[in-house]
Formats: sequence, C-alpha cells, structure tokens
Amino acid sequence: MPQFLNTADSDFEQSFAALLGAKREDSPDVDAVVAGIIADVRARGDAALVELTAKFDRMELDPAQLRITGAEVEAAIAAVSAEEREALEVAAERIRAYHARQMPEDAQWTDETGASLGWRWSAVSAAGLYVPGGLASYPSSVLMNAIPAKVAGVQRLAVTVPTPDGQINPLVLVAAKIAGVDEIYRVGGAQAVAALAYGTETIAPVDKITGPGNAFVAAAKRRVFGKVGIDMIAGPSEILVIADKDNNPDWIALDLMSQAEHDESAQSILITDDEGFGLAVAAAVDKRLETLERRAIAGPSWRDFGAVITVRDLDEAAALSNRIAPEHLELCVKDPAALSQQTVHAGAIFLGQFTPEAIGDYVGGPNHVLPTARSARFSSGLSVLDFLKRTTLSQMTPDSLRAIGPAAEILAHSESLQAHGLSVTARLDALNG
Amino acid sequence: MPQFLNTADSDFEQSFAALLGAKREDSPDVDAVVAGIIADVRARGDAALVELTAKFDRMELDPAQLRITGAEVEAAIAAVSAEEREALEVAAERIRAYHARQMPEDAQWTDETGASLGWRWSAVSAAGLYVPGGLASYPSSVLMNAIPAKVAGVQRLAVTVPTPDGQINPLVLVAAKIAGVDEIYRVGGAQAVAALAYGTETIAPVDKITGPGNAFVAAAKRRVFGKVGIDMIAGPSEILVIADKDNNPDWIALDLMSQAEHDESAQSILITDDEGFGLAVAAAVDKRLETLERRAIAGPSWRDFGAVITVRDLDEAAALSNRIAPEHLELCVKDPAALSQQTVHAGAIFLGQFTPEAIGDYVGGPNHVLPTARSARFSSGLSVLDFLKRTTLSQMTPDSLRAIGPAAEILAHSESLQAHGLSVTARLDALNG
Repeated sequence: MPQFLNTADSDFEQSFAALLGAKREDSPDVDAVVAGIIADVRARGDAALVELTAKFDRMELDPAQLRITGAEVEAAIAAVSAEEREALEVAAERIRAYHARQMPEDAQWTDETGASLGWRWSAVSAAGLYVPGGLASYPSSVLMNAIPAKVAGVQRLAVTVPTPDGQINPLVLVAAKIAGVDEIYRVGGAQAVAALAYGTETIAPVDKITGPGNAFVAAAKRRVFGKVGIDMIAGPSEILVIADKDNNPDWIALDLMSQAEHDESAQSILITDDEGFGLAVAAAVDKRLETLERRAIAGPSWRDFGAVITVRDLDEAAALSNRIAPEHLELCVKDPAALSQQTVHAGAIFLGQFTPEAIGDYVGGPNHVLPTARSARFSSGLSVLDFLKRTTLSQMTPDSLRAIGPAAEILAHSESLQAHGLSVTARLDALNG
Repeated sequence: MPQFLNTADSDFEQSFAALLGAKREDSPDVDAVVAGIIADVRARGDAALVELTAKFDRMELDPAQLRITGAEVEAAIAAVSAEEREALEVAAERIRAYHARQMPEDAQWTDETGASLGWRWSAVSAAGLYVPGGLASYPSSVLMNAIPAKVAGVQRLAVTVPTPDGQINPLVLVAAKIAGVDEIYRVGGAQAVAALAYGTETIAPVDKITGPGNAFVAAAKRRVFGKVGIDMIAGPSEILVIADKDNNPDWIALDLMSQAEHDESAQSILITDDEGFGLAVAAAVDKRLETLERRAIAGPSWRDFGAVITVRDLDEAAALSNRIAPEHLELCVKDPAALSQQTVHAGAIFLGQFTPEAIGDYVGGPNHVLPTARSARFSSGLSVLDFLKRTTLSQMTPDSLRAIGPAAEILAHSESLQAHGLSVTARLDALNG
C-alpha cells in the first residue's frame, strides 16, 4: 500500500514533509576502496586495469584486448534484429534533432566606449562515457549521453563498459556506433573512471566523464572531479503525475509503474484533485502488479515510497509539485500548458495524456538524464552545454581604457591590490602623457 | 627567479610537464571539523551559529543580531567615499549589461509528427553568496556573484560575511546594496554554508550557494553539494600572457604581478616569441618587485611558480596555451583576434595591449569568477546560467504517439522494462482500437 495523503487533513504538512525527507537510498561507503583503485590505476596503468578486470569481471585480458574492435562492433550489429536497430535509429535521430537546437550562440558586440566584448563557446576536446554492465546496461542511455557530446562537437568520445564473464549487450555497441562513439573499452567500475580521468598506456585521458553507474562508479566520479569535469551523480528515479479525473486510471498506473520498475528505491507519486480517481489508480496499480515482470522491484518501490495525494485544486497541486521538484512530471489535465507555467521546478515535463514518461526515456527527443532528489530546484538535465565551455572575450581601445580605467584604479586601490591598479595606471599615463 | 623555458631546448617537454603538474596548493584536511560544524548547525540552528561566531569571530551576538540591518548598510554607504561608490556603480552597470546578454531563450516548436517540444529556463528561487572576511573581502566579488543571480531572476539573494571582532569592509555592504542583495548575515566559515544549505530559525535555506572562501568554506560547500547547488571550488589564480616584442615590458610585468600579488600560490606565465623581450619583462618584474606593496606575496609567487617560455612562433604559443588552459589569458600580439581563434581552452581572454587583466577583475563586464587549475578544459566562468535551470517540455499528439510510440515499445522491451512499454501500448491500443 502506498501512502494516501489529503491536503485537507490536519496532519498533511507533517506527512508530506516526511514523504519529501524519506531517505530512499543507502549509499554504501566505498570511498576507501575506490581511492585505492584510483591510486593503483594511476600508478600502474594498463597492468592495473587488466588485474582489476580479472578480479571483478572474471576476464583474463591482454592490454591489447582492452579495446573493443570494429569487427566486434560489426558482429554486434549483425546479432541485433533490424527492428531493434531501426528503433535505435529513430531514437538517435530525434535526440540529435532536439539537442542540435540547444547549441548556444557566440556573441560579440561593441559597447558605448568602443570596447569589444563577447564570449565564445567551444567543445571539450575529449569526453568519456561510463556505461554500466549487466541489467542496467541501457542502450538508450548510450544515445542520451553520446549524442549531446557529438552534437556539441567533442572530437574524441570514449566509452567504457564492463563485460562480466565476457558478456556484453550487443545493443550497447550498436547504440555507440549509431551515436558516433570513437573508442570502446571493456573495463568498468572505479578503474574505468580512473583510466578515463588519468589515462593509461591504452586509454588516453579525457576532460569530462558522464554516465550512470553503481556506488563505486559514483564515488570514483566524485574523487576525480576537478581533474576532469563530471555530470551529476544521479539518485533513484522519480515520477510525479498530476492527473484530473478525466484520465484512464490504468494508463496512469502504468506510468507510475514505469518508474517503480527501475529500482526498489524509485518513487512514484500521484497528485489528483479527485480522491475517487486516486483510489481507482491505486487499484489499477495493484492489478498490474499481479502480472508485471518486474513486480518484485516495482511492488516494494510502490509500497515503500509511492504516494497518492488528494488536493483541493490544481493550484495546490502545482505548489506541492514545486516543493517536490520532481525528475519527471506528467501533467494529465485539461490544460497542461497552463498548469506547466506554474510548475517551475522539474527536470522534464510531459504534457497531456498521450505523453507517457516512457516516450521521454527513448524517443521524445529531450534527454532522459535528469536531476533527481529535488535537485531540479537548482540543476538541469544533461544537454549539449555539459560538453561545452564558454570563454569570455574583451578588448579595450585607448578610449575605452580612458573611460573605465579610472574606476578600475579606484577599486584596485580600495582592495589593496596595487599591481592591479598600476597595470591600468601605466597604460593611462602613456595614453595621456 | 622564475623558470626560463625554451621550446627549442631538448628538455623542454619535461620542464613544461613539470610546470603544468606543479602542486601549488596544500589543502589542509579540515573535513572532519567541517562535518561536525554542519551537523551542529543542522541540529541547533541559530544557537550553534551564535556559539560558533563567538568562538571564531570573537563576537557575542543575540540571534536577532545575526542579520545586518538596513540602517547598518546606510551607515556603510555614508562611510564610503563618493569616488569609491561611483566606481562600484560603474562596475555594477557594466557587469549587469554584459550578463543581461547571457540570458538564454526558451524554445518551443512542433516536429514533423505534430509533437510539441521545447524547454524553459527558470531561476533558482533562492541563492546564497558567501563573502570572505578580512583581507580577501573583495567588494568586486560581491558584484560578480550577486549581479548574475539578480539578472537571472533569483527572488531571494542572501549574503553571509564573517565580521571578525565586529569588523566589516563597508564597501562590501555598499556593493551588496548596489547589486540588489536581499539579506545580509554576519556569519562566516562552514557554519555560514551550513545555515544557507539547511536553514536556521533566522536564515531560510537557499537552493544554490556561490562565492569564494577558505579551506573550511570549500570543504563545507563540497559537503552540502547535492542538498544545494554550488559553484566551482576555485584554486589559486593564474595568468598566461602571450606577448610579442612590440610591447612595453613594464606593462606586461605589471600584468604578471597582478596575479602574483593575490597569493603566494598564484601562477604567472609569459610566453613570447622573442627571448630578449622575455628577459626584459623579467627585469621589469624584478624592478617592480622592489617597491610593490605586496612584494612579500608577489615575490614568492613569481619565484616559485612564475615562468617565461620562449617559443619559435605564435602557433606554438597557442598550442602551449591550450595545454595550460589558463584562467586568464592576455594576447598582446599584433593580431590578437586571429590568435584567439586558436586558444580555445581559457576562462577569459583579454585582447590587445590596452586590456590588462585587471580591467576584467573590475569593470570590463565579463565575470571574474573563472575556472582555475586547468579546468577551463571543461568548465566556464560564473554566469547567469549558474542561477538558472532548464526544464524540458514535450507533448505528444495521438498522431505523434502512433508515429514514434512503436520504437519506444521495442526499446523498452529490449531493456526488459515492461511497464515502460505497456504505458505506450495501452495508449496505442486505445487510439487504434
């Protein structure tokens, strides 16, 4: 049974605060282990990678075998059905088209003093994408990480993916090929992150590392941050559906289960202005849970972290949504565009009853790497901007230095930074002398 | 004596790699202390702030005195010279005008299936700005952090600043007032960061914390990251000047000293295609160091981390610059715009001999909070984007769901995420049924 809350109840605020504050994830403290692995890879390079891969993935490799060959990728393509390959291509094309529109513009202008000002965007030179092995090895995540990097103009994009016992999902290789990945290495865990950050004989270092991973990978990303850039550290997935009574309860139930089936720690919340509709959705969830393949995951998620909240009206729903700041927000209401104007803190919004969140996971176009754990209050999903950086540009003329230099001299003096001031004074003296 | 390197020397690569890898900063390990302070502030709120302020800043306060009053700000304005106030206003106006141009645009379009796609930017609701006390309490940094937040549309901007022994730089209060800061609290250190992140009875929590600080502040920002957003953790300042022989050696020397006077760990590097010019600049530095007020800081910085590198030509200079990825880059050459096309990894570029870096610290317009320690390879200076987040939007029509839904079903199935697939199937069945 999920929690049933009602804003009309006297204890609502307390229950809602408890729901917001629920600790859904126990992060094992693997930091010491990870520090050791990173130090080992820095010290011994490929030799450490080979040893750690033998230990964790039960694979005996030569360093020369760390890289997955073009022939292996071609074999994967041959092993995948045409239907699946085409579905990946549909997804890739839509993701590419969406992210191409995100490319920011350079700017340059001349101000009233004659100074030229502006900025310029440029891509990071090399990026690394971590792809998990096993069950969480999602080809869709390869597309969602690799395509923005390539759209941004990253010249060298390396993928690392563990292949425990030699097993790899061929769709991951096909997705990498479609997305334009340049290099793929069969290595995982903290050792892969260390190799991407510091480089080994076989793997050249990158400037930015993105992609999901387990606690070891997350700890390694935190540790190499600063040496390289990283994307966010994602927590368990979340969905908030705001739905009025004019919806099919089964559709909404399936949307809630789409998140719940990811992880026992995932959270699915329904907010509705019709208590009876909320009960109907909960009943539909129970019915679907009887047969769902991943009911052993979705069931506990719904039971432990699921919630159905009844509100007086949609204004109240929007206010609660902003406090939750959900990763995914579905607006299944009569005028979703109007309601979306009020829901400002959310990673991705899906408008209307024909936009199940699963569309966004695969083929909608927007990125599915999104801020979790209320971080949509201050952060955004993955985009081309994660693979770009901005350089500011300024060029003074003698006239502009005469116009604004004196203010710089005064401020430098007030901050006791004499050389700062003198660097302006020496030029003004020459110009005015 | 700084290092003198020449790309024509056989040991250049080794010397240059050593220069790049030089560890300039010893970060004391204060993490355990900081963890305790944060836990204390979370547990006891204002009472902890009052106690810690008594201990570290030797100030006995009531909780009601934590906030600096409007009358105190007015008194500070009265205590500052008109010249200084006007200089701050010149700087603020130029910073505001530059950052206003950074505001990104929302987007919405309809794709070929009839689906509506787009994104929307929104400001973080509340931001906190840490301002150091004592010598490093720079009013220019208040402007550089606060103005982008206000341009972005942050509704509530709170400043924390320690006032050891009751002392505060009145220019900091004036800068806060000019920048539109909403609240100012006399609290510093890790306790200020904890209060901003978690809130106390007096200080409401914020969503994003920016601003420079000592090792305690940096460790606290790392610890609260995730609960709130943070800006970068900045290292010691750096400048790289690329200059040909047609420059005044004294001007270049002063530019190098502008960074060196910040910190003994700061790094100033000159690259020139004329060895004699390099020697002339080094001689000019020595002369300036005889009288510079902060020679006890600038001298060791130049001696320990300074370098003069002679190159064969400017192409070589650009290649080295990209490996250094400097925070500040001055291009004092005949055609700086052309050279700037080659120098892609840099936080801020200053073009031509009339653009000393100090202009950018105060009144140029671009932000002076910039990526250090080679992180310009993957990150950017502070901007309005640091106070905004992007929500993606998508709305399928029945036709677009018919067009792209089947690909989503196939991919969901291939990832063994049945509920994802069924959430699409249920809708397609109804549409096609």
